[in-house]
Amino acid sequence: MATVQNFTPGLEGIIACDTAISFLDVEHEEIVIRGYDLIEISKKLKYLDLVYLLLESRLPSDEERDNLEREIKAEYGLPENVLAILKLLPRQMDAMDALRTGISALAGFDPELEDHSPEANRRKTIRLLARIPAIVANSYRAGQNLPLLEDRPELSYSANFLYLITGTTPGELEASIFDQSLMVYSEHEMPNSTFTARVIASTLSDIYGAVTGATASLKGKLHGGANEAVMRMLLEAGTEHKIEPLIMEKLRNKERIMGFGHRVYMKKADPRALFMKEALLKLCDEIGNWELYDMCVIGEEVIKREKKLYPNLDYYAAPVYFLLGIPIDLYTPIFLSARTIGLCSHVMEQIGNNRLFRPRVQYTGPRNLHP
Amino acid sequence: MATVQNFTPGLEGIIACDTAISFLDVEHEEIVIRGYDLIEISKKLKYLDLVYLLLESRLPSDEERDNLEREIKAEYGLPENVLAILKLLPRQMDAMDALRTGISALAGFDPELEDHSPEANRRKTIRLLARIPAIVANSYRAGQNLPLLEDRPELSYSANFLYLITGTTPGELEASIFDQSLMVYSEHEMPNSTFTARVIASTLSDIYGAVTGATASLKGKLHGGANEAVMRMLLEAGTEHKIEPLIMEKLRNKERIMGFGHRVYMKKADPRALFMKEALLKLCDEIGNWELYDMCVIGEEVIKREKKLYPNLDYYAAPVYFLLGIPIDLYTPIFLSARTIGLCSHVMEQIGNNRLFRPRVQYTGPRNLHP
Repeated sequence: MATVQNFTPGLEGIIACDTAISFLDVEHEEIVIRGYDLIEISKKLKYLDLVYLLLESRLPSDEERDNLEREIKAEYGLPENVLAILKLLPRQMDAMDALRTGISALAGFDPELEDHSPEANRRKTIRLLARIPAIVANSYRAGQNLPLLEDRPELSYSANFLYLITGTTPGELEASIFDQSLMVYSEHEMPNSTFTARVIASTLSDIYGAVTGATASLKGKLHGGANEAVMRMLLEAGTEHKIEPLIMEKLRNKERIMGFGHRVYMKKADPRALFMKEALLKLCDEIGNWELYDMCVIGEEVIKREKKLYPNLDYYAAPVYFLLGIPIDLYTPIFLSARTIGLCSHVMEQIGNNRLFRPRVQYTGPRNLHP
Repeated sequence: MATVQNFTPGLEGIIACDTAISFLDVEHEEIVIRGYDLIEISKKLKYLDLVYLLLESRLPSDEERDNLEREIKAEYGLPENVLAILKLLPRQMDAMDALRTGISALAGFDPELEDHSPEANRRKTIRLLARIPAIVANSYRAGQNLPLLEDRPELSYSANFLYLITGTTPGELEASIFDQSLMVYSEHEMPNSTFTARVIASTLSDIYGAVTGATASLKGKLHGGANEAVMRMLLEAGTEHKIEPLIMEKLRNKERIMGFGHRVYMKKADPRALFMKEALLKLCDEIGNWELYDMCVIGEEVIKREKKLYPNLDYYAAPVYFLLGIPIDLYTPIFLSARTIGLCSHVMEQIGNNRLFRPRVQYTGPRNLHP
């Protein structure tokens, strides 16, 4: 019989692996990414600097970052058959399910799929970074009967991504805030989706399979799906006067309010939420309408007062995406796109020092039955 | 800082969850499925009895099993768009990647996808059991430019599955042995793919996503991919005289011999392997040619002598599938099909008493760097 002393549901507090990629230092309220504070990096640098840091374990020079951007742009463009597959998916299909199907199909078009060397996996990561935004945007556009869009390499990586989603060239503030949102979503230690990717990779399956599985995980409403639920609640309230009564009613009905609390942070603030709160204020300043910001602040205070919970990233990323003109259905797919670099880094680290994940169970069923 | 005392790579020996579905009792060399011995069940009953047992926690009467078979057959048939998607996948695509893409796409066509009630998940399980065999067979046939085949409801569930794969109506012995192979592959406690499915399901993602992720996991050569590797080695040897020299050469070259050993069984025999060994002998008796059986027995003895390892299920399932006329590329997809009932049972159990999987890490990277 297996020992039971280590059993905690959900593996809470259990160490799943060694990693040099990131760590949530709750004590110091710091999200450590390869030694750097994620928030400090996000304020000073760009998404592709962070991508470089995750890939190469050090920050790039400007030239190195520009080279990485060129490498990614050289891989822009989806195979025609993948676009055709996206068009065959049902119009009402969940955007995460369409994205999962697109990534899974894309695997068949990568000539290096079965080469698990670090060099080949780095190249596959570059391809995924180049192509996942186009899957996110075009699977949505196909479902809406909108014309599919091609990448515009003259735009920055983030501006092109936002262009694919909205169909219009973003302004400087919009592109910059979208870039920052990709940074704060890029990597976050061992959430369920990253764990899923490492568990799959540990069988020596391929990197596309690991990201496909992570996409399935991130869809769940206890994980990535939370940002969409937040926005739907804010829209349900509609004005700053109605947010408190709405939340109080939901609490009375024992409904879970999404966007608050976090297994690891527990009773402390998620530093990424504070950063996106600032971004939300900037966007409200630009349009001269602070209703959404005020609504969020009231909601934050009500939940702090009633439940002693702090907002997590999803709570403030949702209204930011709303003001950037992003369809709500794409919030979680964008989260997955931003997290691709984190997922791929974990897959490569797992393969570099692999041990198959194969835990045991505590059997609670009957014994000694006979047919 | 998180505690580190529980850290074992690959979560070896760590209890991941409670389950009443199955348990590997290594001490008594028994695979317990809802209280019954898997091998005893497999000798006396049929695959659909086992499916019923996994779904309903008790064995069916003959009538109940027949009703289940009718329920499954009523869901036969793939949506036209899923067949069109399978045809758009590249011809050289790995069969597990094609299957993963097909299951992921199929999600979009299930009207109950987002209903997580036990009743809806049971119906989705029935649909997956009805449709995954057709995806396995027809994605392969599309890749080989063979005409796609439709289910034949007048055949038993297993005979129809084997027909879809080979294109010919199987004989009684063939259908019966294929049915037994589905039984021994159906459920096996907490291997990587089942763990993947439960981890994904714990976010409250959907059952198709969980099975899609499990398909990605099962592809890995440290997991489901092993049965294909076994057959390729047997074919490389070709005759009973060459198997020992081939294995000895591989051992000298430090190559891993697939189909031997198991994280949980360690130094004991896998009871499923012995059962499939008997099936292999029956098939050899029928054709009056024992070369493959003799080759396998010699290989078993060489590895026992040299490495003190016992064969696992994959070692004897591979030559059985070979003699059943199954293309090697489909061994792992068939494993996934047979395991679908196990995966879905675990997903339903997980959702019924859910706790999000979210472990921690042991951070080994640098600290306190600044951009």
